[in-house]
Amino acid sequence: MGKIKLSEISTRAPKDLDKDKTKKKIQEILDDLDNLQNLLYAENKHSLLVVIQGMDASGKDGAIRNVFGKLNPQGVAVKSFKTPTSEELAHDFLWRIHSHAPAKGMIQLFNRSHYEDILITRVHKWCDDKTAMRRMKAINDFEQLLQEHNNTHILKFYLHVSPEEQQQRLQERIKDPEKQWKYNENDFAEAKLWDVYMQMYEDCFENCNDAPWTIVPSDQNWYKEFIIASAVYDMLKSLDMKFPGLKK
Amino acid sequence: MGKIKLSEISTRAPKDLDKDKTKKKIQEILDDLDNLQNLLYAENKHSLLVVIQGMDASGKDGAIRNVFGKLNPQGVAVKSFKTPTSEELAHDFLWRIHSHAPAKGMIQLFNRSHYEDILITRVHKWCDDKTAMRRMKAINDFEQLLQEHNNTHILKFYLHVSPEEQQQRLQERIKDPEKQWKYNENDFAEAKLWDVYMQMYEDCFENCNDAPWTIVPSDQNWYKEFIIASAVYDMLKSLDMKFPGLKK
Repeated sequence: MGKIKLSEISTRAPKDLDKDKTKKKIQEILDDLDNLQNLLYAENKHSLLVVIQGMDASGKDGAIRNVFGKLNPQGVAVKSFKTPTSEELAHDFLWRIHSHAPAKGMIQLFNRSHYEDILITRVHKWCDDKTAMRRMKAINDFEQLLQEHNNTHILKFYLHVSPEEQQQRLQERIKDPEKQWKYNENDFAEAKLWDVYMQMYEDCFENCNDAPWTIVPSDQNWYKEFIIASAVYDMLKSLDMKFPGLKK
Repeated sequence: MGKIKLSEISTRAPKDLDKDKTKKKIQEILDDLDNLQNLLYAENKHSLLVVIQGMDASGKDGAIRNVFGKLNPQGVAVKSFKTPTSEELAHDFLWRIHSHAPAKGMIQLFNRSHYEDILITRVHKWCDDKTAMRRMKAINDFEQLLQEHNNTHILKFYLHVSPEEQQQRLQERIKDPEKQWKYNENDFAEAKLWDVYMQMYEDCFENCNDAPWTIVPSDQNWYKEFIIASAVYDMLKSLDMKFPGLKK
């Protein structure tokens, strides 16, 4: 993946893709995923780390719910990374991340992640470019550690929405009493920094891509879910897992 | 709950209960649970701790999967407590438990729990009666702490199977290549200690019942799931939760 320009990538599904057929396909993939996850857990040899990043209201929660929500909860853990606590800030930026790395057999979802330390922090200039570059190196080393020393397979998704779609969803949050709790008073101020965010994301994709990023067109939830489910399925399928038989 | 005798409690559903109708009812309860969990998460005021105990092959994994498997994984965490590590043993027996107590808004499932420290440990006499009594006091104090200081509601389930049903399920584990990984070479030896286990469980129910136990007849999975889903539903429903509206 070379330098990519997010503004040149569509946030929508290909026009000729049939929505109903795709939705049916998603269901089939999710059924297969269920079996693959059981096998992952039983074999206890590999693990999967799924990093989900995206702007506010890009549909991270929904992706977690709808792609991973039918799997056995015993084999799936979700960690949402929020503003670091003072204890977390007293350590290196990967300290709080490392403790949530997946154990063998597990699927670990990160709702936001260590990438925030080179995204929001750079946008607001809490972190200068030189520090950001050193962090990117540290992130690559860290991801390599997980991959090489614990059979952790890493999938990173960027949920790509258009700024117009984001505005619409934020407006909905304010209006709908059942969604208001998701609204944060900083959301609109952050949204104004859209272009800087896109630049920082593009930097991530360029410099931290040993474990690959998938740019997920996310204006339509069904297409977003299709892309993520397919990628997770392909990854697990490629592992050629087997039930381990009786313990020796 | 006074002194109860497990041998006097049926491990099966009432004979006149219709299986198909009950299964339909479970689906309705699970749909409602989904909404209640979303509300629990949104309101961010209460939390729920579900302790699941039972003999080997009593169906703990299945209960977790089938009752909680359709909820949003972001709001549900599962912790399986296994043989303590040397680091865990270097602390008091509730140390490793406490770090998995549910945050507000969350449903935390314990697959086995702090109760193992007065069950298997007593059966094998790694823990004498006097220590066990002191542990029960500590457990009650601990559960009270969670209840009174973090709005944690605690439901404890004992999955009640007959020794005959257990034997059959263990045999299946050995025969079925897809289940062999669940089989542990100690399982049959432990099963022989059935009566002592029952005694120790009865002691738990008598002495650690401020947060109440539910004895769940578990020879039939559908009935087990019905009882657990109903209890969780009743608990969450009783909380009278509301969407919190915009943050102030």
